[in-house]
Amino acid sequence: MATVPVGKGGGADDALRLHRAHGARLPATGAWREGDLLGERRQLSFGDRPFALEGGGVVLDVTIAYETWGTLNESASNAVLVCHALTGDSHASGPLLPGHPQAGWWDGIIGPGKALDTDRWLVVCVNVLGGCQGTTGPASAHPDDGKPWGSRFPVVSVRDWVRTQAAVADHLGVRRWHSVIGGSMGGMQALEWGVMYPERVGSIVPIATALAASAQQIAWWSTGRRVIRLDPRWRQGDYYDAAPGDGPHESLSVARMVSQITFRSDDVFTRRFGREVVEPLDGFSLWQRFEVERYLEYQGDKLVRRFDANSYLLLTKAMDLHDLGRGRGGVEAAVKRLRAPVLAIGVVSDILYPLYQSHEIAAAVRAAGGAARAVELDSPHGHDAFLIEIDQVGLPLAAFLDDVECTDA
Amino acid sequence: MATVPVGKGGGADDALRLHRAHGARLPATGAWREGDLLGERRQLSFGDRPFALEGGGVVLDVTIAYETWGTLNESASNAVLVCHALTGDSHASGPLLPGHPQAGWWDGIIGPGKALDTDRWLVVCVNVLGGCQGTTGPASAHPDDGKPWGSRFPVVSVRDWVRTQAAVADHLGVRRWHSVIGGSMGGMQALEWGVMYPERVGSIVPIATALAASAQQIAWWSTGRRVIRLDPRWRQGDYYDAAPGDGPHESLSVARMVSQITFRSDDVFTRRFGREVVEPLDGFSLWQRFEVERYLEYQGDKLVRRFDANSYLLLTKAMDLHDLGRGRGGVEAAVKRLRAPVLAIGVVSDILYPLYQSHEIAAAVRAAGGAARAVELDSPHGHDAFLIEIDQVGLPLAAFLDDVECTDA
Repeated sequence: MATVPVGKGGGADDALRLHRAHGARLPATGAWREGDLLGERRQLSFGDRPFALEGGGVVLDVTIAYETWGTLNESASNAVLVCHALTGDSHASGPLLPGHPQAGWWDGIIGPGKALDTDRWLVVCVNVLGGCQGTTGPASAHPDDGKPWGSRFPVVSVRDWVRTQAAVADHLGVRRWHSVIGGSMGGMQALEWGVMYPERVGSIVPIATALAASAQQIAWWSTGRRVIRLDPRWRQGDYYDAAPGDGPHESLSVARMVSQITFRSDDVFTRRFGREVVEPLDGFSLWQRFEVERYLEYQGDKLVRRFDANSYLLLTKAMDLHDLGRGRGGVEAAVKRLRAPVLAIGVVSDILYPLYQSHEIAAAVRAAGGAARAVELDSPHGHDAFLIEIDQVGLPLAAFLDDVECTDA
Repeated sequence: MATVPVGKGGGADDALRLHRAHGARLPATGAWREGDLLGERRQLSFGDRPFALEGGGVVLDVTIAYETWGTLNESASNAVLVCHALTGDSHASGPLLPGHPQAGWWDGIIGPGKALDTDRWLVVCVNVLGGCQGTTGPASAHPDDGKPWGSRFPVVSVRDWVRTQAAVADHLGVRRWHSVIGGSMGGMQALEWGVMYPERVGSIVPIATALAASAQQIAWWSTGRRVIRLDPRWRQGDYYDAAPGDGPHESLSVARMVSQITFRSDDVFTRRFGREVVEPLDGFSLWQRFEVERYLEYQGDKLVRRFDANSYLLLTKAMDLHDLGRGRGGVEAAVKRLRAPVLAIGVVSDILYPLYQSHEIAAAVRAAGGAARAVELDSPHGHDAFLIEIDQVGLPLAAFLDDVECTDA
């Protein structure tokens, strides 16, 4: 394996291809300001070694994009892995920059003096396989013909992601993470780390997530996929040579609109939008919009400019497949493998990964004889609260990492 | 105005045209059994009188389909109006029959000896304008050219529906309803009846509904409409001459799948489907289904066989426009017009029309000096509980109608 400079490998070309198919503007650049925290962005190439997936597929020429902040200490004991959610990427902290279509999604948590203090911890974030932000995904070139994988890209699982992250850990010289932390889809990775590599994790912090995807969660994500499948411009996944603007942007946008409702809450929508209208209600017409519709459209369009429809399909499918107990004799048996103490954070107003699921995580760990605590995040913002409520997430998180360190010592 | 026999007017032809565009089988017939309660199905024609809508449009050649059960007494004081929800129709009670693609949606509530006792009450249910079950809608023939209205059909509102129902009441000789009752979209009609015709309603029973559509409700319904708009086979609403199977059936089905999630609950989905799979998880593939997905597909396909995509657009838009306070100086001022006592029934597990909205209805009426009570329906079934929990709906409903009668006397 070898670290390759950013921009080589498939990453940059993929992004261009993706943006062309979506007919979207490339992200604005130049938002970087002197003094902003800059992570180290790297790509790890698996070279010629095929990467066999849990679900039976094989990915060739795998390149894993990751970013780091801080410095690994001599005993390599201060590394923390942060796992991103569905539409996040390895850019967990830092400004909007060329190649980073948005500022770090956990900028308030990761940095000098912050909850994940980069003067103390080496923080690592790895873009998931099947994604579209530098790690090999369906928009990457297939080695056989140089054309995008498209529909040929196999279904990935959370366990596959954890194995790519283990390769990054090996590469960095991290035998054991002080903690593995993540919200939503990231929390599924944290849980799997605890079970797959119990000796390699000092603690785990699953946030707004579940031991296994529920039927309702599968219902939400699968209907989003059906929206994209409905779009003839999706072309069964092989749309990368589409003319500008002729990719599956509208369906990805609508799929995002559906999920965006589940990311927030009734309360916040009422307070923020109520029944305000964009076009006045002098007369009625079918496509007249309320403000909440404009907000959803904005969220959909924003995602389309930086995300790939095929990646959306793969990542949401991986979430549906998430089940800590699969092939392990059930969740209870799986949780018994865990050695790391667990801080499960849930959000009171979360309608997508309801609070009770965080309590279930803590209860399952305790029932198996492990150490676990559940913290309730009291926020009206719904599922997205883990991205918004910096203090409510950061304070228990920092305290927990301190506790774990004391216990370790 | 004149009553026309069923099957004349646009109704039957519309249904055929609709089914052909969807490529669906016509509904099965022959499920009627001797002794089943049969309602009287009628259509009321507005003749040449154009029907001007609240939103500025005009519908010509309006035919209103309605069904009745029971007999009007001499003082015409025993009539009860039941208003249907989004995908319901005038067939609130009775068996599956030719022309009725499904059995009555409130069969357990309406009938001899039931909560709405048809030995005592004349129960009336009217199909809404813009729908597709006998009342004029976008699949009906436009008088100018005999072709379906399609995209020409104007946006309708809950208030328009109430005015058509008032015409049916006039036709039947009902000056005043003993009660106006409805769940969800039907509850919006009940509330509007109370405000638009305070002297014509003895009581109202809005169930699992709201004083005004919330931002989250608008978000749900508007994304459903966006799913249909995404479908090239929707053809901007003019798809009725499409080849068999080339209508917007897939998008209507997917829109229904999204809304079906909001009609039920996390709890019920977990109990009923959990993580059961249709195709075994020996290897993973993108369109492998969990049981909950098959259930949603079934619900989507079932709707497509009996419903029109354009009607889905119009009716959901009418729900988004629902606001008891529009043009009346706000909800508080509107509620002051109400004279009827109100029984507001809400469902504890409803995620679409949350319980608090039923309490808000009762609180608003009481604040305006009116009589109102909220009843909590303790069911895990979510929004659809009003169609499922026959006893929990029926008992307070029957008692309330008795109370109102005593007060009247």
